Amino acid sequence: MNPRSPRPLAATPAATAVLAMVLTEGPLSRVDLARRLGISSAAVTKAARPFLDDGYLHELDSERTAPGAGRPVSPLAITPDREFVVGMKATADEVIGVVCDLKARIRASAHRSLPDCDPATVVTTLAALVDELLDADPGMRAKTRLMGLAVSGDVDRAGGLVRLSPLLGWERVDLAGPVGAATGLAVVVENDVKALTVAEHWFGEGVGTDDFTLVTVGAGIGCGIVTGGRLLSGAYGVAGEVGHVCVDASGPVCHCGARGCVEAFAATEAILGRAREVTGRDDLTLSQAAELARSGSAPVRALFSEAGTAIGLGITAIVNLVGPERIVVSGEGLDSHDLFETEIRQAYATHAFGAAARCPLTIRPLPFEEWARGAAAVGIQTLFAPARR
Amino acid sequence: MNPRSPRPLAATPAATAVLAMVLTEGPLSRVDLARRLGISSAAVTKAARPFLDDGYLHELDSERTAPGAGRPVSPLAITPDREFVVGMKATADEVIGVVCDLKARIRASAHRSLPDCDPATVVTTLAALVDELLDADPGMRAKTRLMGLAVSGDVDRAGGLVRLSPLLGWERVDLAGPVGAATGLAVVVENDVKALTVAEHWFGEGVGTDDFTLVTVGAGIGCGIVTGGRLLSGAYGVAGEVGHVCVDASGPVCHCGARGCVEAFAATEAILGRAREVTGRDDLTLSQAAELARSGSAPVRALFSEAGTAIGLGITAIVNLVGPERIVVSGEGLDSHDLFETEIRQAYATHAFGAAARCPLTIRPLPFEEWARGAAAVGIQTLFAPARR
Ligand SMILES: [Zn+2]
Ligand SMILES: [Zn+2]
Repeated sequence: MNPRSPRPLAATPAATAVLAMVLTEGPLSRVDLARRLGISSAAVTKAARPFLDDGYLHELDSERTAPGAGRPVSPLAITPDREFVVGMKATADEVIGVVCDLKARIRASAHRSLPDCDPATVVTTLAALVDELLDADPGMRAKTRLMGLAVSGDVDRAGGLVRLSPLLGWERVDLAGPVGAATGLAVVVENDVKALTVAEHWFGEGVGTDDFTLVTVGAGIGCGIVTGGRLLSGAYGVAGEVGHVCVDASGPVCHCGARGCVEAFAATEAILGRAREVTGRDDLTLSQAAELARSGSAPVRALFSEAGTAIGLGITAIVNLVGPERIVVSGEGLDSHDLFETEIRQAYATHAFGAAARCPLTIRPLPFEEWARGAAAVGIQTLFAPARR
Repeated sequence: MNPRSPRPLAATPAATAVLAMVLTEGPLSRVDLARRLGISSAAVTKAARPFLDDGYLHELDSERTAPGAGRPVSPLAITPDREFVVGMKATADEVIGVVCDLKARIRASAHRSLPDCDPATVVTTLAALVDELLDADPGMRAKTRLMGLAVSGDVDRAGGLVRLSPLLGWERVDLAGPVGAATGLAVVVENDVKALTVAEHWFGEGVGTDDFTLVTVGAGIGCGIVTGGRLLSGAYGVAGEVGHVCVDASGPVCHCGARGCVEAFAATEAILGRAREVTGRDDLTLSQAAELARSGSAPVRALFSEAGTAIGLGITAIVNLVGPERIVVSGEGLDSHDLFETEIRQAYATHAFGAAARCPLTIRPLPFEEWARGAAAVGIQTLFAPARR
């Protein structure tokens, strides 16, 4: 097994389409699949056959739509326990791992802190965490051959390497190779925000939409934009950088060097830096700042409001330019979403152009485990759909 | 012939792909086509056969890649004169029309002013203009069966109707039906900016790119965004509204009601309104304002600079979010591009994130005829590629 290139289950476009649709929107009858995919029922039956044989799909009990309505309908369903996929997220401090079934439901989870973020340390820790997760259940181990791995930064998914990760201090680090060798698993590496977008698009609020956006709020403000069913990656490797959309050219300086980026108002460090300035307390923490805002400190409250407005304007740029069907806003930063949400929605309502305002906005906190689940979802995606251009 | 639904030339995905690639990037040998489309040479030969038979394609003289290098290669090329397509742009004042060959080269052009923009008047004028264009050349008329028609506003291309066009004062106006009946041509209606994007994507700087953006500057600031080869239309019918991306939440009020949109700084009316304010001259024209800016009036010059910065920030939002391979900025507004270009490029250089700044920016004026050519390009597109979702 080549650890760098996990092989997709399906070999033809029709089989890929059938399998992916049953996974994300099933159970579905062959007739429904044929109609929705624009292929014949015979083609669906032919495409599904090998996956029924090897257990990735099963037939639900026959249903008759109406008495005497002809042949019974046996909807096709995914068999979630046919295979398990490991998902890992590596940060500068720790590694979080989950094992998911094929429906991306978390079946086990664990985490380990990192003494340093040297790539070798991370690889060793990842391997130990895999053992911890899988040793508890030999049946699960036997059915696990694939790991998705998410890190922040610029990731070359096809090459299995991290081009640049400022948070981890990495430049051109091959991960898929060493992690594959250390764990015996096929490994697919992806940017963490993109991984979370895949999870939400395939298994969350994005299911059934071709145009979907996930925005994450936390240390940075990132986003994953899906158009035409395809996650944008940018002709030059840059896309979804909503954190560096300028919402006020005379605003505060961003760490990227420009003025008035969304992150210059709303990234965790930006809020904290500004809160320390207005309070004169150099040791203020973010949760203390949030407490001050909640308990009536007008200048600190204003900082959170400005952050919410900046995020809302960034989201509105996405809506006005790209026109997604749904947007989910999530991330650790939204642990204090009570301090953001009104302003996000207000900026959105004011600046979304015409019918674009109809795009629903879901705003919610993000359990940290979800990042690892996102990585598992990327693993599942490589099984069910070959990478598209 | 159903005037509402011009039929594509090709019936299968392979034939569509071959035909579109020869049109936009040909001449190409069968071997090159097979390699680039990921299909067999035999499939290319089979797909091309009917179009060679009916004259849409022809073979160029045989070439040998090297002496004795096996079978001669006869590249496939489009036959531009096999069919002609009418393109029309209707504004509130006039109708501009062109006849293009299949390579979207303008072969004839004419225009007529409109006494009013009642839909019936526009239909009659369009029909008269078609006659004027085609009567001059019976050979051309015999080969013309299709018209592309571009108007500003919200257009339902599939339904052939204009949902809303504030500039024309139209709401839910069926155009394809009446224009088809009056001209005997099959008619496809499209938003003017999208039409121009199609022309540039298929026949201009966008050729060969899957991710391309065209920005238009004039009465409004619009854009067409192509991702994955598909022109974004927005899940709720809104996309490419770069004119209403907010670049300064405390900026001037836009006609959409929000503050600090790109159009609030850079649309023709916005510049003119602000220039009249700073000069106190209520009858100032845009060209007079441009003259003042050029001849040293600092406050008027500043307005053009702010407009350029706003446009540059809007473009940067596109680059940071979507990551196109190339961007073309054009439009009547760029007749005074000497007053914008530096600021557009400066805002872009400052705010494009990382490698996104590598996306080349072409800034150039737009002859008004080009809008009509864009409409013709949409007609050509319906012949060569069925509408994608
Ligand atoms: Zn920035
Ligand atoms: Zn506006």
